[in-house]
Amino acid sequence: MKSHKGSSILSAVTTLTVALAAGASFAAPTVTRLTPPSALFTYNDATPPIVARFLPGQRFDLQATIVPDAGQTITSAIFKVDGKPIGGAVSLLATNGTPANTVAATRRAYENFKPGIHTFTVEATQSNATKVTATGNFQVVELEHQGRKIDAKNVIILIGDGFGIAHRTASRIMSKGVLQGKAVGQLNTDTFPNTGLVITHSLNSIVTDSSPGAACYSSGNKANNNQQGVFPDDTTANFDNPRVELIGEYLARTEGKALGIVTTSDVFDATPGAFGTHTQNRGAGTGICDQFLDEAVAKGGLKVLMGGGRKWFLPNTTPGSARNASTDYAHAAELADGWDVASGAVDPGRDLIADFQAEGFAYVPNATSLNAIPNNTKKLLGLFALSNMNVALDKINGPTKRNVVPAGSSSGQPVVVDYGFPDQPMLDEMAAKALQVLKQNKQGFVLMIEGASIDKQAHNMDSERWMLDAIEFDRAIGVAKAFAQQNRDTLIVVTADHECAGINIIGASTVPDATLSTLTNATSPTLQGAVGPYEAAGFPQYVTAPDGYPATTDIDNRMIIGYAGNSDRYENWRTNPLPLRDSQQPFNGSAPLNTYPSGPLNRDTAGNFLITGQVSGSSAVHTASDVPVYSFGNGSALFAGTMDNTDVFFKVMQAIFGGCKN
Amino acid sequence: MKSHKGSSILSAVTTLTVALAAGASFAAPTVTRLTPPSALFTYNDATPPIVARFLPGQRFDLQATIVPDAGQTITSAIFKVDGKPIGGAVSLLATNGTPANTVAATRRAYENFKPGIHTFTVEATQSNATKVTATGNFQVVELEHQGRKIDAKNVIILIGDGFGIAHRTASRIMSKGVLQGKAVGQLNTDTFPNTGLVITHSLNSIVTDSSPGAACYSSGNKANNNQQGVFPDDTTANFDNPRVELIGEYLARTEGKALGIVTTSDVFDATPGAFGTHTQNRGAGTGICDQFLDEAVAKGGLKVLMGGGRKWFLPNTTPGSARNASTDYAHAAELADGWDVASGAVDPGRDLIADFQAEGFAYVPNATSLNAIPNNTKKLLGLFALSNMNVALDKINGPTKRNVVPAGSSSGQPVVVDYGFPDQPMLDEMAAKALQVLKQNKQGFVLMIEGASIDKQAHNMDSERWMLDAIEFDRAIGVAKAFAQQNRDTLIVVTADHECAGINIIGASTVPDATLSTLTNATSPTLQGAVGPYEAAGFPQYVTAPDGYPATTDIDNRMIIGYAGNSDRYENWRTNPLPLRDSQQPFNGSAPLNTYPSGPLNRDTAGNFLITGQVSGSSAVHTASDVPVYSFGNGSALFAGTMDNTDVFFKVMQAIFGGCKN
Repeated sequence: MKSHKGSSILSAVTTLTVALAAGASFAAPTVTRLTPPSALFTYNDATPPIVARFLPGQRFDLQATIVPDAGQTITSAIFKVDGKPIGGAVSLLATNGTPANTVAATRRAYENFKPGIHTFTVEATQSNATKVTATGNFQVVELEHQGRKIDAKNVIILIGDGFGIAHRTASRIMSKGVLQGKAVGQLNTDTFPNTGLVITHSLNSIVTDSSPGAACYSSGNKANNNQQGVFPDDTTANFDNPRVELIGEYLARTEGKALGIVTTSDVFDATPGAFGTHTQNRGAGTGICDQFLDEAVAKGGLKVLMGGGRKWFLPNTTPGSARNASTDYAHAAELADGWDVASGAVDPGRDLIADFQAEGFAYVPNATSLNAIPNNTKKLLGLFALSNMNVALDKINGPTKRNVVPAGSSSGQPVVVDYGFPDQPMLDEMAAKALQVLKQNKQGFVLMIEGASIDKQAHNMDSERWMLDAIEFDRAIGVAKAFAQQNRDTLIVVTADHECAGINIIGASTVPDATLSTLTNATSPTLQGAVGPYEAAGFPQYVTAPDGYPATTDIDNRMIIGYAGNSDRYENWRTNPLPLRDSQQPFNGSAPLNTYPSGPLNRDTAGNFLITGQVSGSSAVHTASDVPVYSFGNGSALFAGTMDNTDVFFKVMQAIFGGCKN
Repeated sequence: MKSHKGSSILSAVTTLTVALAAGASFAAPTVTRLTPPSALFTYNDATPPIVARFLPGQRFDLQATIVPDAGQTITSAIFKVDGKPIGGAVSLLATNGTPANTVAATRRAYENFKPGIHTFTVEATQSNATKVTATGNFQVVELEHQGRKIDAKNVIILIGDGFGIAHRTASRIMSKGVLQGKAVGQLNTDTFPNTGLVITHSLNSIVTDSSPGAACYSSGNKANNNQQGVFPDDTTANFDNPRVELIGEYLARTEGKALGIVTTSDVFDATPGAFGTHTQNRGAGTGICDQFLDEAVAKGGLKVLMGGGRKWFLPNTTPGSARNASTDYAHAAELADGWDVASGAVDPGRDLIADFQAEGFAYVPNATSLNAIPNNTKKLLGLFALSNMNVALDKINGPTKRNVVPAGSSSGQPVVVDYGFPDQPMLDEMAAKALQVLKQNKQGFVLMIEGASIDKQAHNMDSERWMLDAIEFDRAIGVAKAFAQQNRDTLIVVTADHECAGINIIGASTVPDATLSTLTNATSPTLQGAVGPYEAAGFPQYVTAPDGYPATTDIDNRMIIGYAGNSDRYENWRTNPLPLRDSQQPFNGSAPLNTYPSGPLNRDTAGNFLITGQVSGSSAVHTASDVPVYSFGNGSALFAGTMDNTDVFFKVMQAIFGGCKN
């Protein structure tokens, strides 16, 4: 490979987003953005320039933002691919402002079956008949038929949100133990035959968030942060961006496959949302949950949806509801017609659970009812909390289960005596039921299972909580592996959307837990001195209870975690006693039951010490490092080496449509 | 896999190291340590209990520490394997003290060719004829003959010291660039077809240091921290520990292969040392360097040795020499006879360069002479600095090259105007010459190339310096790759001994460099606010100069690194102007040229802010996370999935002796 010359990168990029100084104007109509995003830089020196890639026939929107001259308007636009008009309606959408009369010309749901690089051109005309053209490119990826015997009928994609390399190591040390330098047991991913490394950047940053981080896997394309299933645009509406057909939509349409989405977060959250919805605003909960039913069920094969987030499904007249008009949508006809989807409606009073049930979904509000579903259940909606589900440590630590934080320790009696939702399932239970339902679809399925709070608790720098959630995630992987062992035409891909918090294992406590709880020194780093590095760390020995989780996390010689992406925090190295995020404290009909200040800047302050963060704010940040991918089953050999996150989508499709050689 | 029950781990371990309370005594002679280390815990549920593993015929020492009753002495000991006496001399070495008369019974250089699990037993007799026995186990690993056509004649092992997953990502962002979410170019490891994950624990801690971290790769066995090529013992001498035959020794003896060791550190340092020497004290520089010649050259096939560390090779009468008696050795006859090696001598006045030359080595003291070696050079010693070589940024930034830190910036004129060793080669130059020499060995070779200061500068939390060293390391990988493309019977394995400093990329500066240099606020986190996370990070655009390194590291929108294993430091996010470690400031015949305080607690203090570390001390620490392994060439498919660090050794040997299927 020739070495890269930095100066040539910049000059070779087609800069399609043009910033205008205030008051400036163009001398002619100008295209300031072309979608799909195009670039002319050379990637890998051997391959042609490309940013946007699609499967043969995978649908996507073409769009151009066009600025007319002052006093003019854009009257028409057409799109050509490889020099030929593609036909179809082109809408002219109002954009978000300056310069006046700027429009987004949009051709919806285009598809191209011919593998290779294609150019596309927009030709726009303004009211004085002046024309402008601009050209971009995209690639249709050829799938190779390598061997149908090892293709994949079913795909299970498990996303540990924020699950970096060290999160997994920590969960292995905690749940399996290490003695004489060797792991005493294996995580499920330790048994997977193939491993790779995934580059996680988003369309607009080296540091992605979960929306484009997951949408790369569900669409094969990058989006800006906070966006999923779409490309960026210059209009204001949250749900009208140029779309890319998602894995569920494509496989339901072309193969009749079913889709399942299972998460421990609120189901509207970025990762589950990216597998079933299209929006530039990951926070638009009402519309996202409506779209699950109105589009993902109707068109995307969605047959299983489980997690938290009941608040978006309850009419706004019901206590606990979060439905509101500002996060909802009603599509313009040009989009609904172009994609052949329902228009939707701004309807905060909608009873979305009832509407799912009307479409044949069994609805389960808790673990007991989940585990009691009939064997022939074909569609399943599970909403186990109003917002995010509680994390594994707190689910285990609840009144119906045992105490991970031992009673009487300074980490407290389990202060949370009633979650409001005391009967939440563990992720492995959800995975098992999802597979039971989906396997009834004769054409196979894609199931996305997310360990969501690995990320949320890493943000919170609550070490024990993300570690237990990583163990919970591994147990769900075990359920998937057992399924794949019995159904050999199944591919399992385990990865992350990004790393969260810059986590690593920096040693183990050299101070007994009972003593650690009494250390108080706010001015000198007494608690730094408790961190035994190198051989002082030894081998922390957590005892695993019969349920598969630590008997207690407050052991002597506890593993100690550092954070590279840390904001300021007070730290005492011990398990924090309470649910950590206000949003995770579920509604119980009155006020939240707990008001203990559990954030990094509130907890552990008494007598303990402040670690100055390396970033501002009150939460650790995502990082830009590559993340591992672990694969098992048919097609798993495709997931080796270093790959872009968008490659994962095409490798999954290669496994489904073409198989692999070994 | 059955789930692991934590309580059963501890009870099932054979505790062979017994702590005695002061004044207590045993009722009978007791074995308090057995070597090789043995355990009875279940690993992977399917495989038998094992800690120590060897190749067929790979030599190692059997040893038992035996405590006699009070007033008694141990008079004899014999070893049996699988119930049968193995013969050979058993020495009784004095141990380091309590209880009185404790001895280490040692059988040197045992070998076993039969694959499978073996038990071994020591039977010791004390002066009153009372006997004691103790039993351990080890495994002889069977190599499978999978296909000679894709076996490996040559193996190049590249170790990025401390080179975790984020170090590589950062070096890609800096040297290749990212635009619209996609890497604009590929690192050499990005092109490698196979990737795996390596568990890095040492024999006595989840957090290894470089000695056992590298010795796992060179010996297939774990050691305690600070130890290499040996198992731990209870004697005081640094060089008499129970040995394990190293990769160079085994392959020179059985196959006639050559060994090369190339590093940017002092050649006595842990990683190079672990490939050619046996000691419990990685700091014993005089003896380590003597052993390179007296044993690694004589018995281990060593034909190329390059790096820093000239101070150990100069007689102690020469200015700059560090040779001393306390770090030297003279072997007892039982060891020298058992292993058939020279006894050595405590000889601080030795002229080791002359002795290498007497063995036929060409000696090169600088880059110019390195690049001028004749094509038919068969043995090569290069010592380019007294201690560690300078890091890439400073080598480039020296007077004979260009300035990475731009003149006139607040990071300074290049303050280092004379390194004392201004003509040091880059690692890719060293790699190329090592390959030129080694390829003349018809039976093939093993070459270890270390990017040493990735670790050292990560310890120092000097982001730009480890990033440039990671780029330097990648360029050496490129040389190895080009060699393997022309010599297809070559395997390349790139990995790390451990992660260092808990590094990750937490964003990019939102403050221009010129402004960043003027920010001064010691009491509020102004510099935290300069760290743009998520989409505020965008895509840092370093410009690559024709030499392959950044034109400057002090760009606007610079990448910003956080450290999870951080000690306290002052931070201004800008390139530090000077060589960083006193030990890296080479002797120039008088005092070190620079006295600028460049450590994390001394630099950047003026007006900038203190980041409270998560560990104590003045240096970031190693972490326990898994590290990636990247492989290319014949046998590379073996390096997939998750593996123990000792597995890497056996996979390399599988590639050499048995090949692999694809």
